[in-house]
Amino acid sequence: MAVYTPVSAADLAEFLAGYDVGEAVSFKGIAEGVENSNFLLETTRSRFILTLYEKRVDEGDLPWFLALMGHLAARGLPVPGPIADRQGQVLQRLNGRPACLIEFLPGVSVTEATPAAARAVGAALGQMHAALSDFTAPRPNALGPASWPPLAARCEGRLGEIDADLPDAVTRGLAACADWPAGLPQSTIHADLFPDNVLMRGADVTGLIDFYFACTDARAYDVAVTHAAWCFSSDGRQFFPERSAALMAGYLGEIALTPAERAALPRLAAGAALRFTLTRAFDWLNTPPDAMVTRKDPMAFARRLGWYLAATPEQMHGR
Amino acid sequence: MAVYTPVSAADLAEFLAGYDVGEAVSFKGIAEGVENSNFLLETTRSRFILTLYEKRVDEGDLPWFLALMGHLAARGLPVPGPIADRQGQVLQRLNGRPACLIEFLPGVSVTEATPAAARAVGAALGQMHAALSDFTAPRPNALGPASWPPLAARCEGRLGEIDADLPDAVTRGLAACADWPAGLPQSTIHADLFPDNVLMRGADVTGLIDFYFACTDARAYDVAVTHAAWCFSSDGRQFFPERSAALMAGYLGEIALTPAERAALPRLAAGAALRFTLTRAFDWLNTPPDAMVTRKDPMAFARRLGWYLAATPEQMHGR
Repeated sequence: MAVYTPVSAADLAEFLAGYDVGEAVSFKGIAEGVENSNFLLETTRSRFILTLYEKRVDEGDLPWFLALMGHLAARGLPVPGPIADRQGQVLQRLNGRPACLIEFLPGVSVTEATPAAARAVGAALGQMHAALSDFTAPRPNALGPASWPPLAARCEGRLGEIDADLPDAVTRGLAACADWPAGLPQSTIHADLFPDNVLMRGADVTGLIDFYFACTDARAYDVAVTHAAWCFSSDGRQFFPERSAALMAGYLGEIALTPAERAALPRLAAGAALRFTLTRAFDWLNTPPDAMVTRKDPMAFARRLGWYLAATPEQMHGR
Repeated sequence: MAVYTPVSAADLAEFLAGYDVGEAVSFKGIAEGVENSNFLLETTRSRFILTLYEKRVDEGDLPWFLALMGHLAARGLPVPGPIADRQGQVLQRLNGRPACLIEFLPGVSVTEATPAAARAVGAALGQMHAALSDFTAPRPNALGPASWPPLAARCEGRLGEIDADLPDAVTRGLAACADWPAGLPQSTIHADLFPDNVLMRGADVTGLIDFYFACTDARAYDVAVTHAAWCFSSDGRQFFPERSAALMAGYLGEIALTPAERAALPRLAAGAALRFTLTRAFDWLNTPPDAMVTRKDPMAFARRLGWYLAATPEQMHGR
């Protein structure tokens, strides 16, 4: 939630000289994107986001991410498209960092996920998957099931320091996910479609953003991640069946789930909940309590994990 | 450079219901203002900054600051005016913090202070002082000369940890400022008109912002602060006579300096340099090196202090 690499007015003017986008009218660092430096730029022509990629993003992955965003924007999805410079390049360097000028999209991140919002997000996810059928360049999911046992091991028996219930939740989750659904339809997936990565106006989705966890994986796993992100109270204590039914109905209006995908959904969602439990736990144990970063509670997803381990596909469809 | 108090879409909608400004179209936390949480808000009608005041701003001072900004905006100065709600109130509470919706101004903070920019800023400062002749509500300068000896004492003999030259520079500055110019014309002053508090488009000043150090003090002290902020390389090693001449010419085109003000200028500027040297040194000694905040080097102003202690009024006018 900060700007890590400053960009001066002089830096900006030099950078913009390479583009045909007009001159800067306003330029503000924005507190968005935990891992990158982002600026909101208004020019005499339009508005843009300027992103400088910080060290947690692998520079080698950037052409793939930018191609993905450009593909979706070109298909009319509400995804911010990278802007090409006068030479046709989208990926640049600025102040020692990889950088990209990206389309600005209006909308506000939802915090209260109403059923209407969940339906719209489900539909947007389905439209995104449909539009990705011919985006076939692969990128492995570095945070997929194979990563979870070693990630749990790297927490070195300290999960109980966070919450007394956490070690058992993780053990049960790892055991359940050892039998991971295989052979499901694959796709490029967003893999992180939380409310803060969705811009909305009223019940309309105006932006799907932050594709930097996107990868190739089971399409239904993306549905599962989105379900875990949208269908519970933020602390994970309460499941909202209306949101769940609306999310699934929105998705299924765009793209069908196979019987195997449908049957696998609770297990996939348990895996999604385990993934966020583990990454939050790891970050918690490796973030000093007095750091200026708010630590996210792993228990919020450990509770979801418990719910999914007991859930049926019918419950996830709100029936 | 962060958002300390989050504001959700639901919080925002409830807050905006009290205003006649339209509905939210876009809302982004911005990395601006070290001490407050700021958001850039676009509504169906216009654009605004939403500021939540954090603990370092004294809540009791806010009505004065907001009245000052409103006064200057009403006089046509490029100052962001506070927006009144449907009941005519400007100061609100939001998520436990005092809050205010403020006009958005275009422009980009200057980083290369050209002579043309310095001239425009000098003129804007003069116009601001002229417009403040009838803004007579007083606010003492908490960081005025009386505060400097105790502030130096609170650094507890640790100035040498920052730089071997710093203790002697502070001693010399305190000695020089013990004989502080008295009886100069008083005004409400900005007291912090650094380049990052000025928005510009080309050579036009489009915004004077961040009035949260404003106070009642010698008008020429404001000129001195602005001079120290604009007329040196950022590390303080190089003085730029062209910028200095342009800044003074811009100011003097709007408002005259008395002979006493003119004679006092080097001493006032030494005091200004000492003020920023001391507050930076105090912050440096009280900020952990691994904090996510960039520490500002006190020596950048200790070097300016050295220059001013040897300067004549003629040198400050670039002659």
